[in-house]
Amino acid sequence: MERSTQVVVSRNKSIDEQVLDVISSFNQGIKDVELKGYGREIDRTVDIYNIIKEKLGDAVSLVDVTIGSEFKDKRRISYLLFRLRKSF
Amino acid sequence: MERSTQVVVSRNKSIDEQVLDVISSFNQGIKDVELKGYGREIDRTVDIYNIIKEKLGDAVSLVDVTIGSEFKDKRRISYLLFRLRKSF
Ligand SMILES: [Zn+2]
Repeated sequence: MERSTQVVVSRNKSIDEQVLDVISSFNQGIKDVELKGYGREIDRTVDIYNIIKEKLGDAVSLVDVTIGSEFKDKRRISYLLFRLRKSF
Repeated sequence: MERSTQVVVSRNKSIDEQVLDVISSFNQGIKDVELKGYGREIDRTVDIYNIIKEKLGDAVSLVDVTIGSEFKDKRRISYLLFRLRKSF
């Protein structure tokens, strides 16, 4: 069983669907989920985080936030990465 | 002299202008700048942070990141808040 997985936020899936992707990972026994959004998906990333936090409460904790940028197709794109951990 | 100020990211001003707003605050002697973006401005907030960090390097540090939501006009809106501190 993986201990950690990464979910890259997409504009082509609903926010609710992506919330469920993260919760399903936790329910499958994965301890840490990295939720990463690039560029225009960054605001959705925060929405998804807020909904997960609202649904799971103390059962999930935000252990790290990373902000940075990467080069894609020779142009720089910002990203936001949340590391979420299932608490119990 | 204020020790701290808040800059709320706007879609009506260019990213460069908002980068300069933050840098100007530091140059006026303000030690901490809160950079806050709501909803669709969250991705711009991360862009602005990345450009400030690129321009100022070690002269600025990210002392806190807050993610949350507030009610505006009876609907919930996500926000992202960076607390930036001038290092020297
Ligand atoms: Zn956006």
